Amino acid sequence: MDLATLSTGLDTIWVVLTAAMILLMEGGFALLEAGFVRQKNAVSIIMKVFVDIAFGALIFYFIGFGLMYGKDAGGWIGTTGFLLDGDLSHISLNISHETYWLFQCAFVIAVISIVSGAVAERIHFRAYILYAIAMTGLIYPVAGHWVWAVGGWLGKLGMIDFAGSAVIHALGGFAALAAAIFIGPRIGKFTPEGKSNIVPPSNLPLASVGAFILWFGWFGFNSGSTLSATNGSIGHIAVTTMLSAAAGGAVCILFTMMRYKKADPPMVINGSLAGLVGITAGCAFVSDGAAILIGSVCGIAMVLATELLESKGVDDPVGAFAVHGISGSLGTLAVGLFAMPEMTKGIGQEYYGLFYGGGWNLLGVQALGLVIVSFWGFALTWGVLLIIKKFMPVRVSKDEELIGLDVGIHGVPAYNQDHDFLDLEQLKSRK
Amino acid sequence: MDLATLSTGLDTIWVVLTAAMILLMEGGFALLEAGFVRQKNAVSIIMKVFVDIAFGALIFYFIGFGLMYGKDAGGWIGTTGFLLDGDLSHISLNISHETYWLFQCAFVIAVISIVSGAVAERIHFRAYILYAIAMTGLIYPVAGHWVWAVGGWLGKLGMIDFAGSAVIHALGGFAALAAAIFIGPRIGKFTPEGKSNIVPPSNLPLASVGAFILWFGWFGFNSGSTLSATNGSIGHIAVTTMLSAAAGGAVCILFTMMRYKKADPPMVINGSLAGLVGITAGCAFVSDGAAILIGSVCGIAMVLATELLESKGVDDPVGAFAVHGISGSLGTLAVGLFAMPEMTKGIGQEYYGLFYGGGWNLLGVQALGLVIVSFWGFALTWGVLLIIKKFMPVRVSKDEELIGLDVGIHGVPAYNQDHDFLDLEQLKSRK
Amino acid sequence: MDLATLSTGLDTIWVVLTAAMILLMEGGFALLEAGFVRQKNAVSIIMKVFVDIAFGALIFYFIGFGLMYGKDAGGWIGTTGFLLDGDLSHISLNISHETYWLFQCAFVIAVISIVSGAVAERIHFRAYILYAIAMTGLIYPVAGHWVWAVGGWLGKLGMIDFAGSAVIHALGGFAALAAAIFIGPRIGKFTPEGKSNIVPPSNLPLASVGAFILWFGWFGFNSGSTLSATNGSIGHIAVTTMLSAAAGGAVCILFTMMRYKKADPPMVINGSLAGLVGITAGCAFVSDGAAILIGSVCGIAMVLATELLESKGVDDPVGAFAVHGISGSLGTLAVGLFAMPEMTKGIGQEYYGLFYGGGWNLLGVQALGLVIVSFWGFALTWGVLLIIKKFMPVRVSKDEELIGLDVGIHGVPAYNQDHDFLDLEQLKSRK
Repeated sequence: MDLATLSTGLDTIWVVLTAAMILLMEGGFALLEAGFVRQKNAVSIIMKVFVDIAFGALIFYFIGFGLMYGKDAGGWIGTTGFLLDGDLSHISLNISHETYWLFQCAFVIAVISIVSGAVAERIHFRAYILYAIAMTGLIYPVAGHWVWAVGGWLGKLGMIDFAGSAVIHALGGFAALAAAIFIGPRIGKFTPEGKSNIVPPSNLPLASVGAFILWFGWFGFNSGSTLSATNGSIGHIAVTTMLSAAAGGAVCILFTMMRYKKADPPMVINGSLAGLVGITAGCAFVSDGAAILIGSVCGIAMVLATELLESKGVDDPVGAFAVHGISGSLGTLAVGLFAMPEMTKGIGQEYYGLFYGGGWNLLGVQALGLVIVSFWGFALTWGVLLIIKKFMPVRVSKDEELIGLDVGIHGVPAYNQDHDFLDLEQLKSRK
Repeated sequence: MDLATLSTGLDTIWVVLTAAMILLMEGGFALLEAGFVRQKNAVSIIMKVFVDIAFGALIFYFIGFGLMYGKDAGGWIGTTGFLLDGDLSHISLNISHETYWLFQCAFVIAVISIVSGAVAERIHFRAYILYAIAMTGLIYPVAGHWVWAVGGWLGKLGMIDFAGSAVIHALGGFAALAAAIFIGPRIGKFTPEGKSNIVPPSNLPLASVGAFILWFGWFGFNSGSTLSATNGSIGHIAVTTMLSAAAGGAVCILFTMMRYKKADPPMVINGSLAGLVGITAGCAFVSDGAAILIGSVCGIAMVLATELLESKGVDDPVGAFAVHGISGSLGTLAVGLFAMPEMTKGIGQEYYGLFYGGGWNLLGVQALGLVIVSFWGFALTWGVLLIIKKFMPVRVSKDEELIGLDVGIHGVPAYNQDHDFLDLEQLKSRK
Repeated sequence: MDLATLSTGLDTIWVVLTAAMILLMEGGFALLEAGFVRQKNAVSIIMKVFVDIAFGALIFYFIGFGLMYGKDAGGWIGTTGFLLDGDLSHISLNISHETYWLFQCAFVIAVISIVSGAVAERIHFRAYILYAIAMTGLIYPVAGHWVWAVGGWLGKLGMIDFAGSAVIHALGGFAALAAAIFIGPRIGKFTPEGKSNIVPPSNLPLASVGAFILWFGWFGFNSGSTLSATNGSIGHIAVTTMLSAAAGGAVCILFTMMRYKKADPPMVINGSLAGLVGITAGCAFVSDGAAILIGSVCGIAMVLATELLESKGVDDPVGAFAVHGISGSLGTLAVGLFAMPEMTKGIGQEYYGLFYGGGWNLLGVQALGLVIVSFWGFALTWGVLLIIKKFMPVRVSKDEELIGLDVGIHGVPAYNQDHDFLDLEQLKSRK
């Protein structure tokens, strides 16, 4: 046993274990979203998560990974690595390309899962499959290439995004916003007078456990993004991740107690997630104090963004845009404010945030990258949905929506309490 | 700190962490099965999982491990290592025997949990405890010895089964089939005219999260089976595991959309699991492409096997045989087709599948081993249940089955929505 | 790459991964407790868990950690390390102070989560936040300092508590007892004639999965407490943890079958947890056989303690005292009986339990420490609640309790089955 073998083994299990943790986040997304939507659509949410993980992994294997991390062409796209084949010599890591692929695959599945929440309770299943293919095979890989790949133009400009506040969450969040607007609100969500009805979550215990699973997975997401167990930042990353999430949750408890006279459960759940999303870009680059601040600001911003969206008549059933889009954006910008040179050394260069003497430079690049990535996510999503709409309905029929997608589309209710045997006709007659 | 200590530490945490992941799969089994059965039997399913993990661990400590991995006698059984005591010098690993035991213990608990699903909603609890003792103390350890132990006769013949498509899943699946046939279908499942009624799952969100937890645990199951963090196959194993599971899920989405005009949720859940089961034997030995093929074939075969069992009047409430028995068999045979010499080198010998110039040799050995292990699982299960039946009822009374095993046997309902205090008599009067 | 870097990397990922596993236990606590209480209070339980993790982490960052692990003053408290700042040179580990903090933070969150169960269904949310701050900022850190910190007086006396049967569980359990007595039983739990009504768990599948997640996390809790991946005890710790938990579960299955003529699900769930709690102090110090014995005794003691509490009119909805207080105490004492010198060498000194020639010495110290830590937890909890009561109600109003805390305090029901939109007034009118 030599040192090099040991080192590769160590890095390999680190990346495989953290990748598995990220993949478990799909269970978290499934619980969170199934718990937030109405009971009649809980299965349909979960089937979409299966689409995310099953189609997402395959499409990323066949197409996405190559487009994202293959040999760079002009800063725009990768051109090798489809089916993990071809020249990948520019990726020089202490782990195998396959191990690297697994970790990146876990990321792409997270992105598409962000969108699935925003179109819950009304998107047509077949249309969703096609959209998921576009997201995991094209939209995310291309934007990801710009920021993360060797040779990507935004990365070359100096944009930094440690574990993906921009590439994962802002892109996913703005894609979710586009999809939610494109598909329109759920029937009855907004009254003709513009009043917004509250859709009560069908299963808050499930939703909150989903959040705990996501929180757990996030340690894999952020710390694992070092891709090496000997990276000196791992402990710091885990601590900033924890503090930001805690701050997001705590602030939302206090803020909703002041604002609504009650600690609002869905807001507290999403507040913790907002803290997690917000720290994702800077977890390795900012101080503990900055992490607490980022989490706090993201928590409050999430509440306000949720209210704003409701007031504008945009129906985002699980708060995907407020959590991922807004906090992802804030987190990306926060790197431009709080990045500390002694911490960014680990990625081969010293970066200076605005508050650490860097002037507007880094902040400007972060803002530029953020706008471009978000716009890309929004525009491509809109475009892809437009194309899909030419061939098939993107939204279920009114009848199917009222019955619920579970019985209407998948032929089975999420929960069955009383009946020993299934009587589908009887279920379909209930609206 | 020297290299050897570091290497042992690294391998130890790898095996402990992956063993913990496999043990978490019991939570996955509990959710999957409790979600698939009717609400009135959800607690009874979970109590069986507690039997699996509690009795399983103790019996395997006292008896099973020694029988399986103790000093070989004639290729048939182990003879030392009971209570982790006695000569275990033939097991030469970089981890302690205790660490090795923990990992193997997680395996045996998985095997018995496969059977618990097939007898759901009707087996008597006491009889189940006795059966679980037989499985974890005798049936599985002996068959496992043949394939995996130093000196086991099937292993010596050349059978390979990396993480247990045959030893765990085919054996467990055929045992499940025997038990399901032995105990007979649930009341009302089949009409006198032979029509099959659909029993609607009581809680599909739980069932699907169970699948995601199982998926997560499977990375521990397959990658951890290297028993060493410096094994060069870990990344490859994790990737083939992911691809096969994704293929199983994706294919079942598409196949059920074609066959039933809807993406069928229970089939999609089981399709992913079928992909995971199928790749378990070959995860370290076959290519990515073969993994996708194996997952796809197992997914479709699972759907067809489920239909076939229904049409034959065999009642397997969670599809244990279709998922574990069929995919486990296919996966074991697939090694005989797709094993690649450059990949099997890691286990000390080069194996050639049929498609890689090996002729029928390996495939023949795999088929022989599969038949023997499956038959052993089926026959011993039948025999053990026959013996138990001489002393106590194997099946609950008709009344208990109609009321449900939760209230009938365990005195408490799985879910309680309306009542502040328990009124058992009132619950028992509902059938 | 040199050996020292590799070694630090290895220990760092070990601690970060096990810390993440412990933090996932919050998901386990949330499920366990939400499943055990009535449906109308399931959300309120979960909101308390969010308080535990969000406020707990922040308060421990600002205050608790310094008080617990800062530079010792007189054996009583720590005086540095607030905000991870100041002189922490007395903590000499192979991991960074931040990594160490994360692991300890996961511990403190577990402690406060023990108490949250005992006051379920009736504590006022604001009062709970204040209590959680006191627990995580003062009560636990001070007692923890005595036993675990460099210079703590109980540790210097020779008390040993590997992963916290006393410091975590006995302290948490006695604090839970104090809180349960202080706040009084739930309305209707005891009839005027002193009869005890059974409150049926609202969701046993969730509760049991909570137990499996806790079980999984416990491998992190106990094995991770080595704080080093090259500690030779890791495998042994994991095995004793497994065996004790299995024994606790198995014994409770058999014991309740004898005592109540049925395997009682909540008792079996808590029996496994009792086994886990009991082995927490001695997991590294006792033999496999002792572990099985400890788990068995703790399981039975938990059943009897639960009955005793009921008969005394103390209402502890999830059995927090019976599980954590009783088993934590027994486990702490068991070290005084079963500690083996060859196993305690790893912590720098040989300890001899009563059964290994140590006489009454170690047992006496363990008993003394246990009494002091338990009394501290009980008394401080009582005192803090008294102080809080001077400023605000500690218990919800009768109306809120009858409606349930979810709708009454948090304005949303845990489960919503029938309604497409929320009608809070209508929900509030149901009692």
